[in-house]
Amino acid sequence: MAASSMATAQPASKATGTGQPWTHRHLLQLRGLSPAELRRVLALARVYRGRIGASPLSESGGKQGTELAGRVVANLFFEDSTRTRVSFSVAARRLGAEVIDLTSAGSSVSKGETVIDTAANVAAMGVDAVVIRHRSSGAPHMVVRALEQLHDAYSRTPERAPAFVGAGGGHGCTVVNAGDGRHEHPTQGLLDIYTVAEAFGRLDGFDLSGLTVGILGDIASSRVARSGVAGLTALGAKVVCIGPPTLAPLSLRSLGCEVRHDLDGVLESLDVLNVLRIQFERHEVGGGKAGGENKPAPISSNAIASIREYAEFYALDAQRAARLKPGAIIMHPGPINRGVEITSDVADGERSVVLRQVSHGVAVRMAVLALCMGAVG
Amino acid sequence: MAASSMATAQPASKATGTGQPWTHRHLLQLRGLSPAELRRVLALARVYRGRIGASPLSESGGKQGTELAGRVVANLFFEDSTRTRVSFSVAARRLGAEVIDLTSAGSSVSKGETVIDTAANVAAMGVDAVVIRHRSSGAPHMVVRALEQLHDAYSRTPERAPAFVGAGGGHGCTVVNAGDGRHEHPTQGLLDIYTVAEAFGRLDGFDLSGLTVGILGDIASSRVARSGVAGLTALGAKVVCIGPPTLAPLSLRSLGCEVRHDLDGVLESLDVLNVLRIQFERHEVGGGKAGGENKPAPISSNAIASIREYAEFYALDAQRAARLKPGAIIMHPGPINRGVEITSDVADGERSVVLRQVSHGVAVRMAVLALCMGAVG
Amino acid sequence: MAASSMATAQPASKATGTGQPWTHRHLLQLRGLSPAELRRVLALARVYRGRIGASPLSESGGKQGTELAGRVVANLFFEDSTRTRVSFSVAARRLGAEVIDLTSAGSSVSKGETVIDTAANVAAMGVDAVVIRHRSSGAPHMVVRALEQLHDAYSRTPERAPAFVGAGGGHGCTVVNAGDGRHEHPTQGLLDIYTVAEAFGRLDGFDLSGLTVGILGDIASSRVARSGVAGLTALGAKVVCIGPPTLAPLSLRSLGCEVRHDLDGVLESLDVLNVLRIQFERHEVGGGKAGGENKPAPISSNAIASIREYAEFYALDAQRAARLKPGAIIMHPGPINRGVEITSDVADGERSVVLRQVSHGVAVRMAVLALCMGAVG
Repeated sequence: MAASSMATAQPASKATGTGQPWTHRHLLQLRGLSPAELRRVLALARVYRGRIGASPLSESGGKQGTELAGRVVANLFFEDSTRTRVSFSVAARRLGAEVIDLTSAGSSVSKGETVIDTAANVAAMGVDAVVIRHRSSGAPHMVVRALEQLHDAYSRTPERAPAFVGAGGGHGCTVVNAGDGRHEHPTQGLLDIYTVAEAFGRLDGFDLSGLTVGILGDIASSRVARSGVAGLTALGAKVVCIGPPTLAPLSLRSLGCEVRHDLDGVLESLDVLNVLRIQFERHEVGGGKAGGENKPAPISSNAIASIREYAEFYALDAQRAARLKPGAIIMHPGPINRGVEITSDVADGERSVVLRQVSHGVAVRMAVLALCMGAVG
Repeated sequence: MAASSMATAQPASKATGTGQPWTHRHLLQLRGLSPAELRRVLALARVYRGRIGASPLSESGGKQGTELAGRVVANLFFEDSTRTRVSFSVAARRLGAEVIDLTSAGSSVSKGETVIDTAANVAAMGVDAVVIRHRSSGAPHMVVRALEQLHDAYSRTPERAPAFVGAGGGHGCTVVNAGDGRHEHPTQGLLDIYTVAEAFGRLDGFDLSGLTVGILGDIASSRVARSGVAGLTALGAKVVCIGPPTLAPLSLRSLGCEVRHDLDGVLESLDVLNVLRIQFERHEVGGGKAGGENKPAPISSNAIASIREYAEFYALDAQRAARLKPGAIIMHPGPINRGVEITSDVADGERSVVLRQVSHGVAVRMAVLALCMGAVG
Repeated sequence: MAASSMATAQPASKATGTGQPWTHRHLLQLRGLSPAELRRVLALARVYRGRIGASPLSESGGKQGTELAGRVVANLFFEDSTRTRVSFSVAARRLGAEVIDLTSAGSSVSKGETVIDTAANVAAMGVDAVVIRHRSSGAPHMVVRALEQLHDAYSRTPERAPAFVGAGGGHGCTVVNAGDGRHEHPTQGLLDIYTVAEAFGRLDGFDLSGLTVGILGDIASSRVARSGVAGLTALGAKVVCIGPPTLAPLSLRSLGCEVRHDLDGVLESLDVLNVLRIQFERHEVGGGKAGGENKPAPISSNAIASIREYAEFYALDAQRAARLKPGAIIMHPGPINRGVEITSDVADGERSVVLRQVSHGVAVRMAVLALCMGAVG
């Protein structure tokens, strides 16, 4: 991890990342990406950020690009998601691509077709990229492996080959992971990094050294946390995972982060606090009223004894937020359970960058699509 | 309500409405719009009507406009709707915009996210307009208020601001009400007005004085009726709401219309009869067979004793239709319960303009989007 | 059926089909199309096939056509389908059209609106083509008849006419059958023909004489089989329907094909074997474990005693596949029940052209849309 060396002055090509070639056709996870690769995609996101508005870079009227004109991107969402699917759709369209949605409802999933067959079929239709969300960890990896095997097999018999096997060395179908089980959610990780870098003036070079980022809550179930830890530490930040032992087990240290169970003991040291949502759909949470506006608490479980007890020690309220370092920012990947893991005044308060994260999300997804689909060098 | 003065001759700029500036970023309801504002949007709809076909104005082959090129419109439909969602989608695309659908299925609604959070997130992605349908009256108003509060808050800390807070005084995100509970459905009201104006040669100036429009049926539950009364009366028409006391209570008079319980006593005076659909999904309707082709009648309720009894006094059949004024037209907002509130021969008969209403609907939605999104002066 | 005469040399205009005028506004079924009409659409598909990739014709970078620029195509899918809906969407977009999806979820179907009313409404919005999938045989025909009746009625009162009634002799709304009950699935039939023609070097003229095509399995429930038999025999192929008497009754002979119940007795004579999927959603299949990866076998029925027994006599495994004629190809319309009607090694094996069918599917749908919508002569 050569991240610390990035603190030194860099030539312009490094600052914009344009000097770094991009060699990946797919984005499945942040773990394993080099700091230079992370900088490449983040620097391109910075360029695209200007097309979305509300940025110092925003000046031109024409928001629509043509990098992906004539290309088709398919959203294969086997799990519900508003913001991620819409964010990818907006990103693809801002680059001029066409977007086709395949959500579980109305898809062949009800006929028992596997994710691999579905993806292979969509690729065979000449779709240029598939964005996959699936409740099983590793599903996008399985799809990539299957497409590669098909590609190899068909390369020997091109007369039988479907459209994604390029006759003259075509680019093939790109696969982007939009969240797989408890594994990774790489574009969420990238937008979190971008948000941290912007807030602390690190958009030139994306060097995060000297910054301490807390990730609070349901770490063990969280693909967001896993992508965040991988990307943030690669760029030099120190990451502290915080939660009760059931949600933030010490084994997380193997990812390269600290683990703490006492939020109140660590608040003063944090430049950033990323509050995760309690994944009600993955836990059965017990004990009295949930306190949240949206979600009545059902049956008891082991991971969270009760919302009330969890909130007492781990919910981010105004008092706790005030103890963060001066200039600290508060992030949340959404959707927010207001009154559960974070109070509304903090979620909407002056340290919160929650909605700005959402804007950055479109920009990093544009960058990922453009790079993986070979639209930019 | 200076509607009666509109009967006088008007200069061309008034006839086309081009002389009227449009100052609204959102369209939430027709109540409160001035006659001049209504004329502005209707006159622009008349121009766009030519792009859809089947109109004296239709002559060119190129139907696609570029007024909204590069803009993204999101349909946030928390309640089922074919025609309204598709109509807005066609409208946005005829102006060159991209469209993204968020219906309840496949959205974060299942994760318990509020309509406000969903809308704020979509706006933060740089989406330029959200078209909202929701079963709660006032939901789109709540969204506008929330976006305005966020806008104000973020204007003080632009470094945290999401994309919908314009860095240099941007236009922000437009909100269009596509039907909220029992409150209003303003674009339906506009297309009804347009249809009446066209049928009676009032497309120059949209002065409806001297015309009597009946609205028949389930007025109390109807956002269509509420928008219709507001718009039609503002432009000088006399509106009569007709139905049994449970569906057409005398309190509706406060909206500026007459209320009658005897359809047969009022038929001869009507230039227009707008037949509303019985909102089976809002009532439990009792008593024997429904008579409709689609809908078996379930349990009894207070509002409608039985379909049979309702039909005896209020269903529009050929005999009743024949007693309308010569040249009268019959409208219905759809979807039609054939054999319930209207018989098939009348719905498809020579006085019916039901499908023409649908065509006009695209044109008025184009006008609303173009004006509210600032694409035309 | 003058198919046999097609084996003789043909002038270029016949080979490309460009000499044949296309007179159909709708595509509802292959039965009844002349060999010349089939050649016309297939020859155009060959041209478009180059835009999708993985074809000898593929050379240009720009994949996006403009034949249907400014046109809107609506998918009206009252029955689940991934591949067909996405294939039509990709096809329409490759021609420059806008696409709007109406699937059962989120549509007015839940309000009890009929398919005819829905289609008429969509057409009235100025939508240029509707692609209909419906579980009832004949639903698209009903829609065409209804639109024609409306067209006739409104032609007499143009002042009431919706947008699909062309003011100056417009083209009206195209209807394409994307699968209706057990009747036909014409674009699937066309892509099957295209795949056969390509594999045996018959893309010039699409003369299939001398080829024997087996269709295996659930013929009686299959709209795919019905379209396939009609098209393949019209172009000169010999078609053999194979299955147990309950699924392949002798009455199928009236379609112009042979019927055989002994797969093992006919394998050696086949150039092509098209394996249909067992329509679990139309049968209750009994007897122990299904053997398929996706589908547990439920209750017993008459058509298929048990999956195990069916597989013993009719499943295509490697041994059976090896007995096909040298150079034979194996097709499947998908989605595949792996391990039920076909084993995975055969479905993915070297004789399988299953995914190439999918690529051809986009091309034939482009051709159908372009011809029916009048975008090409």
